[in-house]
Amino acid sequence: MVHRAPIKALAFDVFGTVVDWRSGIAREAAPFLARLNRGDIDPHRFADGWRKRYQPALEEVRSGRRPFVILDTLHREALEDLLRHHAIDPATLDEAALVDLTHAWHRLDPWRDSVEGLTRLKAAFPIVTLSNGNIALMLEMARRAGLPWDAILGAEVSRIYKPLPESYLATARFLGIAPGELCLVAAHHSDLAAARAAGLQTAYVDRPQEYGGRPAPDADAAQDWDYSVDSLTRLADELCR
Amino acid sequence: MVHRAPIKALAFDVFGTVVDWRSGIAREAAPFLARLNRGDIDPHRFADGWRKRYQPALEEVRSGRRPFVILDTLHREALEDLLRHHAIDPATLDEAALVDLTHAWHRLDPWRDSVEGLTRLKAAFPIVTLSNGNIALMLEMARRAGLPWDAILGAEVSRIYKPLPESYLATARFLGIAPGELCLVAAHHSDLAAARAAGLQTAYVDRPQEYGGRPAPDADAAQDWDYSVDSLTRLADELCR
Repeated sequence: MVHRAPIKALAFDVFGTVVDWRSGIAREAAPFLARLNRGDIDPHRFADGWRKRYQPALEEVRSGRRPFVILDTLHREALEDLLRHHAIDPATLDEAALVDLTHAWHRLDPWRDSVEGLTRLKAAFPIVTLSNGNIALMLEMARRAGLPWDAILGAEVSRIYKPLPESYLATARFLGIAPGELCLVAAHHSDLAAARAAGLQTAYVDRPQEYGGRPAPDADAAQDWDYSVDSLTRLADELCR
Repeated sequence: MVHRAPIKALAFDVFGTVVDWRSGIAREAAPFLARLNRGDIDPHRFADGWRKRYQPALEEVRSGRRPFVILDTLHREALEDLLRHHAIDPATLDEAALVDLTHAWHRLDPWRDSVEGLTRLKAAFPIVTLSNGNIALMLEMARRAGLPWDAILGAEVSRIYKPLPESYLATARFLGIAPGELCLVAAHHSDLAAARAAGLQTAYVDRPQEYGGRPAPDADAAQDWDYSVDSLTRLADELCR
């Protein structure tokens, strides 16, 4: 049995772990595409394409080639790129409609267990976001969905995107605790692997519907995580007894 | 009648506005001083001396002469200076006791109307901190006192101490709103004056007991603020009808 420090706080990945980004984006993309008479584009595939497209932009910032910009900005750029890929020129579209669709990322619904799980976990531990999403995005999402965060941390606060080690270390520092006293809760093995390498504890949450039932792109990065559950209420069962 | 933009979020000064720092510090200083056989030092005056002493240190950071450090660090330095002023050598004291007393600033009680007022205001507006206190301090205080912040912003997030204009502007930017759509709620005229100069709306909360009934040091900086109330529940009456 490995000795672990007592957990003093829980930091959460959000997109995919706490909220269902794919259904939420598809829900808002569908009427947007219908208004353009582009019912031929599957809105769930549109969501997949959007999500995939901002990874190279994130890498530009992580590498230092580009100064820090918030995720809303990267989401907007990725949307325009995706529209061009579908032969839609974003310059011909209404600016307010583009802003509104970009903000669909602020209006994602939680998985069914998220609010209850977070509420129970919050009774025992400080719960904070450790997401690449910006502050306004996380705040609007939390108010709409009832996510009871103690604090919104993550990329805009640290000016560092995951999975760079400093993103995890800065979060522990903001909380005034050691990295080993912080536990990352995430549905993504790659995120957890980086957190573990930085010294954090790790809790995996299985979210088989994140990609509509298809395997996650980082499924082969699985490790034996400190905790492994299939919902946040289960995590509360594990940690709050 | 001056035209004002609709308020989209409320940012709160915390020490003095939401919590009673003087009573809280005195409550924890009293047993600390008693253990040193220094019952001759009035714990409320000790609190006043501590609060006053970190202003020059803040100015060192604001001026750029010193890199950004969090308020916990400045509180600790000010405590050591205050102890020396009372002929107590901090080097002779237990480190854990010094850390614990420094963290008394994390354990301040809210004014009687704060929790109800914030809870009502939160139903209508995002409510965030805009304090010079660091994240861990604000988070621990909020959990202990039941302050339902949507987000902890302020000095550690912006790396700027009030009343520099950028501290207010950065907070609006983090929220994705214009400065004129953000309202600072504070018991201090100097804070409100700086916020107004940066373009924010202003709400004054009278806290006559902040200095134990004596006048505030910035009483002569009073202006005709956009809102002026004597409690956060009154502010909710004004803003939430």
